[in-house]
Amino acid sequence: MFESAELGHAIDKATYDREVPALREALLDAQYDLAQARSFPVIIIVAGVDGAGKSATVNALNEWMDPRFIHTHGMSEASDEELERPHMWRFWRLLPPKGTMAIFDGSWYTWPIMERAAGRIKDARMDQSLERVHRFEKMLIDEGALVLKFWMHLSRDAQKKRLRKLEGDPLTRWRVTARDWRHFAMYETFREVSERVLRRTSTAEAPWFVIEAQDPRYQKVTVGKILLEQLKARLAGPAPVPEALASPLSLPNLDAVNILRSLDLTQAIAKPDYDRLLEKYQGRLNLLTRHKAFRDHNVVLVFEGVDAAGKGGGIRRITQAIDARLCEIHPTAAPSEEERAQPYLWRFWRNLPRRGRFAIFDRSWYGRVLVERVEGFCREADWMRAYGEINDFEEQIIRSKGIVVKFWLTISEAEQLRRFQERQTTRFKRFKITDEDWRNREKWPAYETAICDMLDRTSTEAAPWTLVESEDKNFGRIKILKTLCRRLEEALS
Amino acid sequence: MFESAELGHAIDKATYDREVPALREALLDAQYDLAQARSFPVIIIVAGVDGAGKSATVNALNEWMDPRFIHTHGMSEASDEELERPHMWRFWRLLPPKGTMAIFDGSWYTWPIMERAAGRIKDARMDQSLERVHRFEKMLIDEGALVLKFWMHLSRDAQKKRLRKLEGDPLTRWRVTARDWRHFAMYETFREVSERVLRRTSTAEAPWFVIEAQDPRYQKVTVGKILLEQLKARLAGPAPVPEALASPLSLPNLDAVNILRSLDLTQAIAKPDYDRLLEKYQGRLNLLTRHKAFRDHNVVLVFEGVDAAGKGGGIRRITQAIDARLCEIHPTAAPSEEERAQPYLWRFWRNLPRRGRFAIFDRSWYGRVLVERVEGFCREADWMRAYGEINDFEEQIIRSKGIVVKFWLTISEAEQLRRFQERQTTRFKRFKITDEDWRNREKWPAYETAICDMLDRTSTEAAPWTLVESEDKNFGRIKILKTLCRRLEEALS
Repeated sequence: MFESAELGHAIDKATYDREVPALREALLDAQYDLAQARSFPVIIIVAGVDGAGKSATVNALNEWMDPRFIHTHGMSEASDEELERPHMWRFWRLLPPKGTMAIFDGSWYTWPIMERAAGRIKDARMDQSLERVHRFEKMLIDEGALVLKFWMHLSRDAQKKRLRKLEGDPLTRWRVTARDWRHFAMYETFREVSERVLRRTSTAEAPWFVIEAQDPRYQKVTVGKILLEQLKARLAGPAPVPEALASPLSLPNLDAVNILRSLDLTQAIAKPDYDRLLEKYQGRLNLLTRHKAFRDHNVVLVFEGVDAAGKGGGIRRITQAIDARLCEIHPTAAPSEEERAQPYLWRFWRNLPRRGRFAIFDRSWYGRVLVERVEGFCREADWMRAYGEINDFEEQIIRSKGIVVKFWLTISEAEQLRRFQERQTTRFKRFKITDEDWRNREKWPAYETAICDMLDRTSTEAAPWTLVESEDKNFGRIKILKTLCRRLEEALS
Repeated sequence: MFESAELGHAIDKATYDREVPALREALLDAQYDLAQARSFPVIIIVAGVDGAGKSATVNALNEWMDPRFIHTHGMSEASDEELERPHMWRFWRLLPPKGTMAIFDGSWYTWPIMERAAGRIKDARMDQSLERVHRFEKMLIDEGALVLKFWMHLSRDAQKKRLRKLEGDPLTRWRVTARDWRHFAMYETFREVSERVLRRTSTAEAPWFVIEAQDPRYQKVTVGKILLEQLKARLAGPAPVPEALASPLSLPNLDAVNILRSLDLTQAIAKPDYDRLLEKYQGRLNLLTRHKAFRDHNVVLVFEGVDAAGKGGGIRRITQAIDARLCEIHPTAAPSEEERAQPYLWRFWRNLPRRGRFAIFDRSWYGRVLVERVEGFCREADWMRAYGEINDFEEQIIRSKGIVVKFWLTISEAEQLRRFQERQTTRFKRFKITDEDWRNREKWPAYETAICDMLDRTSTEAAPWTLVESEDKNFGRIKILKTLCRRLEEALS
């Protein structure tokens, strides 16, 4: 894997001086085309051994191109706000909007490599982590991103020489730390680990480019040319379409039995019982939020359901029970301009709560496989890949001590009609009903298929869906509170 | 100030039960009107003595209204990301977009009150701090916000009783801490300090409402009614227009002398000198960014200037000298949708750098008093108040150890014409010239007036403008680097 990068690649100064002006001009040109088209972002990862000119390369790219459209991120220690969210949150928040570039010096590869080299994790754990990286990059690419990964390589001897040379020059001495020498002593370990990482994460859509770093001129021009070619190719060609099976995705509907229709919508709770149960579970919920262990968890609640099924009412029964300062509600409507310039899930990542807090999503990332699927707001391939991406997203929340509770609220068609009519005549409910609601109603069967697929494909052990029979509002609300209490009790005990 | 809030105001349960449903419905109605109109945000501050039912009131508002459009912020310790920015950054990032409400339990009043009560600052320092609060609120209101401030009051006896009662109930005992009793021991001090605060920050546009907190029913309904009336009045009436003098703001132009015309644009540096000076100052700049003290400061650079004056080139000579990872460049174009839903300066606040970092603004908040003024993109009153708001903004950056360096680049009309023509014929510069540039050129005299006003009104001792004669690019670039080095040296020594 590193053989070709130990051959002593170099170019002389004259060649460099001849090559660079044309390269620069072409890069600038491509960069402006990118900015004008605003059709995809460019994500560049610069990784490799210590002293291999990573920051010099990053600086050269900034110098050659217009730095106003490049975001350069030297990833160091995570801040406390970052530590309270899933590991990838800090990268999500730095993703470049379409039309711009981000260069990451330090990336999602840093953790697995450093942990494995230090022996704090085994191969299995590293591979698991790389598998997640792979899925993350796949998502970026499916969302249209151009992802370029450069590995700066030096042979053992070359690295030693480089560190010595940096140390010898008073101007660069500060750059060599005791840590660098400690890492150098582990050269072979790093080499083995890195090889495994590169092997497992070099994919057709995001291969690693291993660059020999002995000669800075060779290194910079090589990186510049690869970037240029990839940019030009991508700007000239059509955006890649994610691979996907042709739909239908659903099982053939042979017997008219499905999970929604199997619900018993006649379940109800009479008023006196409801009042008693409401007080009981709201009290229990309130106590749970004051449990000591609660401060270590973040709670993510998802409310989905057919229109008028009572999402708002369900949410209020929860917020009534908890301190408003612990809770942020995110109604999901059409994405904003800034959100449209990012991968689909970005708008939800940005709203993940800190520890000890609730985030309640009134409609959520499931819009992708519901309304966007049914209405054709995205390509078939996009909603088909969304199931996997959503499961990955929720898994990451859960791994960082998040508690994900998802409710699907359902009512019959007849009950929906009754509620729509009521909303139209009640003054303070009139904003809750729009023409769109009536249009959606006509697509009931298409939605039913989408809902069943969603439940089948995203109800996981760690983040199961709770189906809430809401024909009787009292019954639905108590089921929501009860479920939430149980899930919190399980997590906190 | 507190007399009327010690009279034992109370309402009985029957009245409460009768009042609340209608109040709720009206509040919901007003809230939806607000969400539909999206014309202004509502900012509610809930402050007052310990145990005075602040969080109960906040929760009631959330319960009565649709919590999806309310952001509730219990402000506790600042995070490390917040500590590295000006004090007000954490509030700016939580400002509600138009059409929504934010409730702050803990606010910009917390610091001055706590510090003064603890004796860590004197009256003068507190008053200074309150003066800044006053200017901040004035800005919010001029931007259209409805700002409501509630002070929850309890007499000494009532507070004691309340704390005792909370302590006596096993369900609420956790809410009373040793800190509460310590504060109670300082009741008189807090009362004095609070009175001063309320007095100095009760303005016609954002008065304090002092609410007696002895009876929670009275307290909640009173707050709800005030909110309702204010909301309804604001929704019914026209948006308030900031007060301002009728323009012109500029001094009469009696003698055709102005600061721009007095510049000597013939200054130039020949190529060999330029190369030597470039190396010298870039080297010095690089060393400065590695100075130990640099890590304690954030650097904010502003580049403004006539079109084609060389802002991009000036910025590149800086970024070439520093590690790209320390630097983020923010080109200022038309604001995004999310930015338009916030006060004008919000988009710049959100991009303030952490300690040890540069933020370079390629065009900036000065757009308000330049292009927006000249083109009529905002009301006269808006750009006229901007000078003061900008000075406040920069002052806050500087007080939190920021270094603000502002460059105005200028060239002659003839030189601009030459550069425009060159841009049109050079392939990789073609994106740098648009029809708008040609249109702006026709408004040269109007811009000249706006620029002179800007320089006069915003060149402050801590954040002076540096005028950069850029007719000769070499001269301009060296002047920029030299100035930046000098400013950094002053700050770091």
